[in-house]
Amino acid sequence: MRFLTAGESHGPQLTAIIEGVPAQLPLEADAINAELARRQGGYGRGRRMQIEQDRVQILSGVRHGLTTGAPITFVVENKDWKNWTKIMGAEPITQEEEEKMRRRLTRPRPGHADLNGAIKYGHRDMRNVLERSSARETTVRVACGALAKVILKELGIEVAGHVLEIGGIEAKQISYDSIDELKIKSEQSQVRCLDEEASTKMMKAIDEAKQDGDSIGGVVEVVVAGVPIGLGSHVHYDRKLDGKLAGAVMSINAFKGVEIGIGFEAARLPGSQVHDEIQWNEEDGYTRKTNRLGGFEGGMTNGMPLVIKGVMKPIPTLYKPLKSVDIDSKEAFDAGVERSDSCAIPAASVVCENVVAWEVANAVLEMFHSDQLPILQDQVKRHHQLTKEF
Amino acid sequence: MRFLTAGESHGPQLTAIIEGVPAQLPLEADAINAELARRQGGYGRGRRMQIEQDRVQILSGVRHGLTTGAPITFVVENKDWKNWTKIMGAEPITQEEEEKMRRRLTRPRPGHADLNGAIKYGHRDMRNVLERSSARETTVRVACGALAKVILKELGIEVAGHVLEIGGIEAKQISYDSIDELKIKSEQSQVRCLDEEASTKMMKAIDEAKQDGDSIGGVVEVVVAGVPIGLGSHVHYDRKLDGKLAGAVMSINAFKGVEIGIGFEAARLPGSQVHDEIQWNEEDGYTRKTNRLGGFEGGMTNGMPLVIKGVMKPIPTLYKPLKSVDIDSKEAFDAGVERSDSCAIPAASVVCENVVAWEVANAVLEMFHSDQLPILQDQVKRHHQLTKEF
Amino acid sequence: MRFLTAGESHGPQLTAIIEGVPAQLPLEADAINAELARRQGGYGRGRRMQIEQDRVQILSGVRHGLTTGAPITFVVENKDWKNWTKIMGAEPITQEEEEKMRRRLTRPRPGHADLNGAIKYGHRDMRNVLERSSARETTVRVACGALAKVILKELGIEVAGHVLEIGGIEAKQISYDSIDELKIKSEQSQVRCLDEEASTKMMKAIDEAKQDGDSIGGVVEVVVAGVPIGLGSHVHYDRKLDGKLAGAVMSINAFKGVEIGIGFEAARLPGSQVHDEIQWNEEDGYTRKTNRLGGFEGGMTNGMPLVIKGVMKPIPTLYKPLKSVDIDSKEAFDAGVERSDSCAIPAASVVCENVVAWEVANAVLEMFHSDQLPILQDQVKRHHQLTKEF
Amino acid sequence: MRFLTAGESHGPQLTAIIEGVPAQLPLEADAINAELARRQGGYGRGRRMQIEQDRVQILSGVRHGLTTGAPITFVVENKDWKNWTKIMGAEPITQEEEEKMRRRLTRPRPGHADLNGAIKYGHRDMRNVLERSSARETTVRVACGALAKVILKELGIEVAGHVLEIGGIEAKQISYDSIDELKIKSEQSQVRCLDEEASTKMMKAIDEAKQDGDSIGGVVEVVVAGVPIGLGSHVHYDRKLDGKLAGAVMSINAFKGVEIGIGFEAARLPGSQVHDEIQWNEEDGYTRKTNRLGGFEGGMTNGMPLVIKGVMKPIPTLYKPLKSVDIDSKEAFDAGVERSDSCAIPAASVVCENVVAWEVANAVLEMFHSDQLPILQDQVKRHHQLTKEF
Repeated sequence: MRFLTAGESHGPQLTAIIEGVPAQLPLEADAINAELARRQGGYGRGRRMQIEQDRVQILSGVRHGLTTGAPITFVVENKDWKNWTKIMGAEPITQEEEEKMRRRLTRPRPGHADLNGAIKYGHRDMRNVLERSSARETTVRVACGALAKVILKELGIEVAGHVLEIGGIEAKQISYDSIDELKIKSEQSQVRCLDEEASTKMMKAIDEAKQDGDSIGGVVEVVVAGVPIGLGSHVHYDRKLDGKLAGAVMSINAFKGVEIGIGFEAARLPGSQVHDEIQWNEEDGYTRKTNRLGGFEGGMTNGMPLVIKGVMKPIPTLYKPLKSVDIDSKEAFDAGVERSDSCAIPAASVVCENVVAWEVANAVLEMFHSDQLPILQDQVKRHHQLTKEF
Repeated sequence: MRFLTAGESHGPQLTAIIEGVPAQLPLEADAINAELARRQGGYGRGRRMQIEQDRVQILSGVRHGLTTGAPITFVVENKDWKNWTKIMGAEPITQEEEEKMRRRLTRPRPGHADLNGAIKYGHRDMRNVLERSSARETTVRVACGALAKVILKELGIEVAGHVLEIGGIEAKQISYDSIDELKIKSEQSQVRCLDEEASTKMMKAIDEAKQDGDSIGGVVEVVVAGVPIGLGSHVHYDRKLDGKLAGAVMSINAFKGVEIGIGFEAARLPGSQVHDEIQWNEEDGYTRKTNRLGGFEGGMTNGMPLVIKGVMKPIPTLYKPLKSVDIDSKEAFDAGVERSDSCAIPAASVVCENVVAWEVANAVLEMFHSDQLPILQDQVKRHHQLTKEF
Repeated sequence: MRFLTAGESHGPQLTAIIEGVPAQLPLEADAINAELARRQGGYGRGRRMQIEQDRVQILSGVRHGLTTGAPITFVVENKDWKNWTKIMGAEPITQEEEEKMRRRLTRPRPGHADLNGAIKYGHRDMRNVLERSSARETTVRVACGALAKVILKELGIEVAGHVLEIGGIEAKQISYDSIDELKIKSEQSQVRCLDEEASTKMMKAIDEAKQDGDSIGGVVEVVVAGVPIGLGSHVHYDRKLDGKLAGAVMSINAFKGVEIGIGFEAARLPGSQVHDEIQWNEEDGYTRKTNRLGGFEGGMTNGMPLVIKGVMKPIPTLYKPLKSVDIDSKEAFDAGVERSDSCAIPAASVVCENVVAWEVANAVLEMFHSDQLPILQDQVKRHHQLTKEF
Repeated sequence: MRFLTAGESHGPQLTAIIEGVPAQLPLEADAINAELARRQGGYGRGRRMQIEQDRVQILSGVRHGLTTGAPITFVVENKDWKNWTKIMGAEPITQEEEEKMRRRLTRPRPGHADLNGAIKYGHRDMRNVLERSSARETTVRVACGALAKVILKELGIEVAGHVLEIGGIEAKQISYDSIDELKIKSEQSQVRCLDEEASTKMMKAIDEAKQDGDSIGGVVEVVVAGVPIGLGSHVHYDRKLDGKLAGAVMSINAFKGVEIGIGFEAARLPGSQVHDEIQWNEEDGYTRKTNRLGGFEGGMTNGMPLVIKGVMKPIPTLYKPLKSVDIDSKEAFDAGVERSDSCAIPAASVVCENVVAWEVANAVLEMFHSDQLPILQDQVKRHHQLTKEF
């Protein structure tokens, strides 16, 4: 599968085309919309989330509730577009119109793509950069991931995410018996955190950051259960699935780090306490006593749940001003803003879930490719059987 | 540029073909061999490193010391191959020969690709997996990175790496005035660590791990200086260079985490202490007061040095046995070995440098592509000029 | 550059996302619409062309008449969709609704994707295949090519196409002094043929085919002038531009053959009459006395106009019935239809032009990549200068 | 699957790395060598073919006669290399050595990559171009195709090629009952032509061309039998298998045209005589009465044998001189040579077979991917069964 996304934050719409989805997959807009709504929720989101209530339109590749194998088009309209038609329109404008209406953005915000993108693409109006570098793009990336989740569910693979840390407040490790329990518990917390006590503190930290005109980041974790053994491959570096996942997670806006399993903790423990011992019984086949490696050995899945963590930096749009330089006058200024979210970590955990889902679904399709869902299901089932009998 | 690598740990040779290298690049085997030697050095390496003194042969794409634009072939012979011709030969063998000579490996080692790879590819002899999943493959990956370094050097871009942590011992932050100083200082330490005191402790920890029959991991950092602004792109998630770097670093054998800039620390600091303020002066153009984001904003380089960290888990081949299961008898056994390195972190820092170098060189060629080095140099120079005047 | 297209023949819209277009390119919907209109014209088109008057909407990546570097979204609405919402809707339908409204197509038409696609994707209703395999898809492919033409024009590269043969009637070789003349002359003919006499005969042949309930095919030629020397590359088979062009042209619906230069005629002439002699003068640099190789040597452009021919088979939807088999009853039936075009060659020549334009523009961007049009223009100009001085 | 090739005509060796081959495939050097020998045979080859008796070494990815899933390395040594170590060596040489030994090639041959490649890559010695653009590269491309043939054979798919035309002499259409008969008959002719009478004339034409110091081209045809229905896809233009085949065939050195099925003849026949009627019976499922479309509808295979034709121009290295220009002096000269083949069509038919085999094998692996041959075989078998029952 492959996809392209397009669309600006204040343009008419966000669009994605997804190519290579197997036919005969039951797919309804509701499944996508549910994920879009989850992305828009969470404690600490600002006003934009209330303006836009994202709904996907499926404009190709699905007929009467089933995929056909043809490319799928997702469109999410920007409700705010009607106020931006002049400023963001595709049509040429006159010099006069430009002077009247269009306020060029010449003041790059630290932590954003503004300045680099302007230099790269030759823009003296940095709106031409920030409209695309905006986190609004994650909307359709979530939509693509939501589609991947639908595929995975049909194959018995489940993806769930939760928040481990916000603004320095770490959640206690809370155990859960199943991925369903993890989903339910994280959904109950406004910050998607399993630890109730930490949740409360996190919300307080978000409030405080807001009051300070500052922002805070955090750490999210995604877990994938029911994974076949052998996704990815050890035979060539660019086929290792942990590498692909790391690349995909790091490419989410504002993410600055990725860990698989215990991640950086592996630098502090001896090998005997890092690797997961192998055991076998007739019913389950091969399993591991622990899952410190997060479901990966040799760049391949080992049948244990995948565990991927990502860190998102605090949102760079701050009330509290940072120093920057106007690209026209070259004068220093204070880059402060009027409104912004102070924390996007709960949403980021939803984005991360869906980004991970895409990579896993793609790896499944590379390993067991079929053009039809029922055959794909059958092939994955046979593989589980072979694995058990190995 | 693109490359494929091939070769088993005890096969006749490791091979890489690199396609898309600009013509007119001065390239000698010595430049590659120097990196191969660096990879083989470092405190704590075991015996294999003495058996193999890796030397590259350049078998295509270079004539009289200059690249021609044609694909480049690198070959590194395995000196040990002469002892393995029967066990690893490509030719079919008789049942009789097989019984006499070939000891099937049926005991998967925890932390290795053994079991997953065997299930994926249908091998009852796990030698068919481990020969390729071996870290020996990083030899030619370093060779490809060394070529990338030669390109980068011609463009004024330098790559250096050092060790931040081994077995829980963290180096103090040691400042350096230039990337050359960083190179020299890291080279002076047997564990490639700038902090002399920590170096001593790290070597002791390595010795202790060896005595315990255990192994230890660590954290490495790679710094890239002289980078043009705008490598990568914010316009599509799969063009973000930080994402590509994360993917490449995570794909190095045994790596479990990646950070850009302050990485996971970004979860603990307010936004005002994470983002790097922008300043400008006539001589240098735009610079940042700090470099907490590690040279990236919006998935693009911002002109500050790139800072990438990676964590490598302890080597999974341990004298100290871990429990595992024989795939034939299904009986549990202790997966202990006779010999192994107890720590590969200094070498991993060299591998990581070269892996990063490849991705950066590739990003440069995507942004400024030319088929001839002098034109490429000219285009990068013009970009630096435009950047300054922006 | 890369693009994905989506959309069914009777779905709500056709969509394309194009990623990797340089910034600062002047782009208006009119330039795209002009090509869409050309595609819809031509003698022999049936009723569908009157229902749909294709107009593109540019929904991202362009602001105030200039590209921003962000992905570009093209949407072409299907005017007919309002009559197909039930039959082609994405939403699930009840059994009852299905029985009432939806006529399953179970009768594959020879020469179409119907049967193969149904087997591949597991469809018992072949509408799920034919809606996507329809030549309607070429609409957005033309839109993408039209964008490529805009880029090429900025670089002094022009693309023109004309019809060489329809239903066995061959045009005489008509000379033209410039590619502009070729454009004008082909535009004057209702069948896009330079030879007026042949044009008349071709139209008659189209009429006759229609009367017979039959269809006819033909041969089109695309010429590209102003091409830099060295597009493509000899160094690896998959970088040869003639190969890429052949692949792209053959992928146009109903195309069955491709030729570069004299093509199959090269099998009948001695080498001394096939290869183009090289000459040089101060003003023009290196040129060829003839252009029998169609602008390619070693998979690279040699500065002469590119000449690519393609053959399109007759449209397979015939009034005159062909034998086929119902996939449900397995009974034979006559696959005849009520309405169809009898000849699509003039349109095919427009499609072929735009398909070729895309590949050439992409090759230019691979060789001279820049993120900004003015720098790209400068780099191509320098290359022309270097070529002249070589 | 993917592969890269490397190596110069007079360098030490040709190398290919093939990645993505399923494990458990029986593979011996003999299967590859047989194809290499076929490529070297044929009436009209010059001396080079006697110097080099190509033999492949398999240096990775195969153990004891079975593939392991790891990348496969093929090496074919250039026996002539020992005479070229100075001229073609990778090491830098002194000015003095250069003057003594190295004769720069400054005279581009019409019809070769020489001039374009020199301009593209900035070479004043065109040996740096021609060594790679040489048809010698097809040696390892054949080796890769031979591997593909081994895969295909395991899946019941057979590939055969023959010569249709040489120097204007066309073979009569000779029928054959099976692809095995086609193989045997073509192997019996020194020019790989089924028509004995034409064979004799073709050999005479080759002799005459040689006497005239000229060269001649021709047309080859490749047939693939036993192909599953649905390889390729109609859903996106770049997934159409006929397009990929056309691209691959056109990328063979000196090929100037490609046809699927009746190819350009489709421009001369009415639709009712072009499309293949569909029939069905219980034993065979769906078949076609004719195969004018060469096994393709909608870019997908339809179960009929694939029929691909390609035209190769006459070899451009001629005894009979063509005019050209020295790039140093800018003086005109006669580009004549001392020795060359006068016709390479029989060899080209072998190359074409193997190039086609690669694309088909790849399409099979995309559609039915498995990491293990027995599972792949099972999946293809199930598909044949489903097809029959459709």
